[in-house]
Amino acid sequence: MNDPQIRAAVREDLPAIVTMLADDPLGAQRESPDNLSPYTAAFERMAGDPNQHQTVAVRGGRVVGVLQLTIIPGLSRRGSTRSIIEGVRVHADERGSGLGTLLIEWAIDESRRQGCQLVQLTSDVTRTDAHRFYERLGFEASHIGFKLSI
Amino acid sequence: MNDPQIRAAVREDLPAIVTMLADDPLGAQRESPDNLSPYTAAFERMAGDPNQHQTVAVRGGRVVGVLQLTIIPGLSRRGSTRSIIEGVRVHADERGSGLGTLLIEWAIDESRRQGCQLVQLTSDVTRTDAHRFYERLGFEASHIGFKLSI
Repeated sequence: MNDPQIRAAVREDLPAIVTMLADDPLGAQRESPDNLSPYTAAFERMAGDPNQHQTVAVRGGRVVGVLQLTIIPGLSRRGSTRSIIEGVRVHADERGSGLGTLLIEWAIDESRRQGCQLVQLTSDVTRTDAHRFYERLGFEASHIGFKLSI
Repeated sequence: MNDPQIRAAVREDLPAIVTMLADDPLGAQRESPDNLSPYTAAFERMAGDPNQHQTVAVRGGRVVGVLQLTIIPGLSRRGSTRSIIEGVRVHADERGSGLGTLLIEWAIDESRRQGCQLVQLTSDVTRTDAHRFYERLGFEASHIGFKLSI
């Protein structure tokens, strides 16, 4: 297989991205791939924010991986800039191919380029395979992630 | 005591903010209140990002509370916008006064005003008092928070 290309998402990628967000035990319950309009609106809002990097991996012209990288300047830790990784998905056909590692390594490299000192993410407590994956990549499970729907 | 005022931080608040970031078991190890220059640079970088809300609580002209609220548009969860709370501190003299609750409730209200559907934060696994505090406010400890220093 050719190496995948990792690039900024464009609007034409949205159907493939949303299909992948939904193709997941948790995503299946909370995404609506049959109605793209909320995603289109969100994509426009993201496009206006230079600290948002909606990213796709493409192989053979097909979107096979996705993640969102957000750059967050801040005061804590001597004025560290941190990045946050969200919405990571690898296409079902590509699982086990190393694409997930490639995507996260891209996000770490891009975080360095953007002047970050820290990369962070949260993973649902039920995603035990993902937890092992992130620990293999050097991440430390040092925090509890709290969420509140409003 | 008068009610505290919650407002956007200004540059003149930085010494008080950094002192509070450092007045904490974890912060003491990673902040440098004697050298404000990295914080000044970070504050300038934050000021250029309309999705960053560095916030202080002020009572009697003194900064007594601090948090950073970041607004993050995204595709996941039907194009939800989420907010992230970071760097929460309440001055030692004010602990137990309800100021922490007031700050977090402000952050939740501001997140609603900014069109968020989700508020999230991570808390170091050692901060067990903080975990109870966030659960009392309705947050769910649904995630594991991973960090990688780069």
